[in-house]
Amino acid sequence: MNQEAFDLLVLGSGAAGEKGAAQAAYFGKSVGLVEPEPSLGGATAGTTVPSKTLRETAVALSGLKARKLHGVDLSLRRQATVKDFLRHEQTVKGAEQTRVLNNMERHNVKIFSGMGSFVDNRTIRVDRTGEAPVYLEAKVILIATGSSPRRPDGIPDDPRIYDSDTVLTMQGMPKTLTVLGGGVIGCEYACTFSALGVDVTLVNAVETLLPFLDPAISNALKPAMERIGVRMQMPEMFNTCTALKNGIKISMESGLELTSDALMLATGRNSNTAALNLDAAGITPGKFARLETDKNYQVVHPETRKPVSGIYAVGDVIGAPALASTSMEQARYAMIKAFNLAPYKSHVAPILPMGIYTIPECFGAGLNEIECKEQGIEYVTGNAHCEHNARGMIIGDDDGFLKLIYEYDPDIEKPMVLLGVHMIGEIASEIGHLGLLALLSKATSDLFINACFNYPTLGELYKYATYDAMGARARRSTG
Amino acid sequence: MNQEAFDLLVLGSGAAGEKGAAQAAYFGKSVGLVEPEPSLGGATAGTTVPSKTLRETAVALSGLKARKLHGVDLSLRRQATVKDFLRHEQTVKGAEQTRVLNNMERHNVKIFSGMGSFVDNRTIRVDRTGEAPVYLEAKVILIATGSSPRRPDGIPDDPRIYDSDTVLTMQGMPKTLTVLGGGVIGCEYACTFSALGVDVTLVNAVETLLPFLDPAISNALKPAMERIGVRMQMPEMFNTCTALKNGIKISMESGLELTSDALMLATGRNSNTAALNLDAAGITPGKFARLETDKNYQVVHPETRKPVSGIYAVGDVIGAPALASTSMEQARYAMIKAFNLAPYKSHVAPILPMGIYTIPECFGAGLNEIECKEQGIEYVTGNAHCEHNARGMIIGDDDGFLKLIYEYDPDIEKPMVLLGVHMIGEIASEIGHLGLLALLSKATSDLFINACFNYPTLGELYKYATYDAMGARARRSTG
Repeated sequence: MNQEAFDLLVLGSGAAGEKGAAQAAYFGKSVGLVEPEPSLGGATAGTTVPSKTLRETAVALSGLKARKLHGVDLSLRRQATVKDFLRHEQTVKGAEQTRVLNNMERHNVKIFSGMGSFVDNRTIRVDRTGEAPVYLEAKVILIATGSSPRRPDGIPDDPRIYDSDTVLTMQGMPKTLTVLGGGVIGCEYACTFSALGVDVTLVNAVETLLPFLDPAISNALKPAMERIGVRMQMPEMFNTCTALKNGIKISMESGLELTSDALMLATGRNSNTAALNLDAAGITPGKFARLETDKNYQVVHPETRKPVSGIYAVGDVIGAPALASTSMEQARYAMIKAFNLAPYKSHVAPILPMGIYTIPECFGAGLNEIECKEQGIEYVTGNAHCEHNARGMIIGDDDGFLKLIYEYDPDIEKPMVLLGVHMIGEIASEIGHLGLLALLSKATSDLFINACFNYPTLGELYKYATYDAMGARARRSTG
Repeated sequence: MNQEAFDLLVLGSGAAGEKGAAQAAYFGKSVGLVEPEPSLGGATAGTTVPSKTLRETAVALSGLKARKLHGVDLSLRRQATVKDFLRHEQTVKGAEQTRVLNNMERHNVKIFSGMGSFVDNRTIRVDRTGEAPVYLEAKVILIATGSSPRRPDGIPDDPRIYDSDTVLTMQGMPKTLTVLGGGVIGCEYACTFSALGVDVTLVNAVETLLPFLDPAISNALKPAMERIGVRMQMPEMFNTCTALKNGIKISMESGLELTSDALMLATGRNSNTAALNLDAAGITPGKFARLETDKNYQVVHPETRKPVSGIYAVGDVIGAPALASTSMEQARYAMIKAFNLAPYKSHVAPILPMGIYTIPECFGAGLNEIECKEQGIEYVTGNAHCEHNARGMIIGDDDGFLKLIYEYDPDIEKPMVLLGVHMIGEIASEIGHLGLLALLSKATSDLFINACFNYPTLGELYKYATYDAMGARARRSTG
């Protein structure tokens, strides 16, 4: 029997699998990586990067609009397909896949092409087309198999109905599009297609978009998306879907009916665990086939919370936040715990930022206002608006703002400790990093007050939001 | 006689004057501000903001090109004028001027419209059109009168010849443009016009562009500018200029002749001190009418270095770096020193970043490699290239990179102290701020290694440049 042994076996080569494999290999562990797809990179290379490429096109176009240009003739060709906008998508995607492959080779990770499934809690069988299966053994197994779109019941089979895995194959731009689901994926695609000139309606089951963000940011996102043309229907519960000759009709429980040229389902994702033969390893998946883990990312039973020794899970397969960035950190952290890489124990991100690629972008790191209240922390907030910032004015960002949360200290002579950083606006995913680094450095208001920022930049928002928070503190302390 | 007394008098209402006035007023000083122009804001509102508005248009257009779009028809109308591209320039400029006015009013700064000149070292006379002059007295006088373009000898009077104060009034887009001078202004405009579709030749007297930047950045700027279409002639010394019927011809000392539809002079600036009657205050200006100062920005004699008590100068009037950002900090610092605002003495930016708005942008903060060598500091460098970064690939940035300089520590278990941050690339003026905050926090390599950055972002470059520096350290320590 064809059998090999490793210190670590990784199932899946997306962002999480890649970084987990590299981390263990870097510390001298022997690593095998199992991937059923013909190229490495998983959803990160296959979906995240192409969708962000499409989004950049949309942003560039809507940016031109926001900049109120004159002297430029700009038109979208209606017959253009998504593929047209992704002219260099293949290059970017290919480069990313090659980068992953090179990274694995550099770390001497052995790659097994095929579908992996458990034989027992230490053995993986890899099924390969036209070849005998291989059996791999390891002390530690890292599951990073990702997730797949979940379709509500009663959705007909129709080429005009897309999900997040198929939307990038769309032929021709629809005139009208309904996006069902207002989570991260639904919001991001609604913005992208709207900025590309499609008439988009977003349907959301609850009243608030992205409720995990600071309330000021979620509340600002709705009107900002409406301003780029997204129509909102919320809260609306999905009831039925019918394929008509002239479009796809969805009916909501309220009686509302929407018909559009195309429908995109963004109704959540199920974890890719069905083919793993989890029973053989003593693993029980939870709701939506999700793996549940303890804080070290070791797999646990969904009810008893009993850990399954030596088996870890990271990335989309364990559910939210399901971002490439956080998945990579989960993988690094899991490997440090699994192999007790003691001197590097502290080398793990203590704060995970949220970057949401809507138009405008959203960002959050550290505590939000709801968390401060729940934890009984005394705080003050300070805001700075892009429309009052020189660069914000130049780029025509009328919606964006930065919100900083500081721990309240009544002594107005003392600096205040930064607790949370929240932003909506163009390149908020980048500008938010300034606050992230400040949080990691346990910075106080002094950092931003003492900094000289380039002019004109959005970075200056930190100085003015901090002044605003200091003013709020002074009014509270003295009034 | 119409006379008033203040704690502080400020001459000029640009970025430097505004911040100096606000700083002193915030600490309870009575402040008068003298401005000859009808609206406040100086060159910052009048030139910096409009030129950056034009640049954003150019960036948006060249960004679309870099993103290799398909399915979008984009064309520049040749007959378009600079004014067409500045459709919302008036809005931005007006908003900035109003912001300055509001800021002065909020701080109870009294504004005097008219030309100010010294009567003696404590008295300023303000000449107002159609009214009697006012005489103002103050213990401290802050000169922030800025600078004006300097023309080389032998430049004819011709409407096709522009300088940085007149270029934004250009009618029609020239087909060809020669920019004489490769300093910040020359490089920035050469990029903007090239990205707007003008055939631009940049003539520079020396071999290196922006030699105050880290050599890796200045060396990378030349090919990056060439890639967006700027033709370079350097080193070339200007000799003569002739206005021909079909263009403006300049001849260089080497014999090189260049004829183009328009010529832009970016040959340095003279300080605006001629009308100040400096003699009366015992002040002698230096080369290019520049005021020289000590490290507290108190005016000194250019040769004897003897300070002129109570008279400070900040911003463009004292020469390089002459950036809005640094001018504001100089003004705040000067006021803290002038009025001995003791508890706030430390509240001053210890590091001044350089943000250059070329296409791509350049950034520098902290020590560059030449300075490390001069100071005998042992260091290692680490680079990360945008073309290997997911967001860099998406936006098509093939030239950009981040270079970090760390203090060399042979113990590979120990974090290294960050010394310098240098970048070229799209939004480098913003991304560079991450490094600026790290320098201000006296951060080590651990900060970036432990941070979780959003994906895809350019912010990730910091992690990978740090890995690169750690690799360089390991090779040096063990090899």
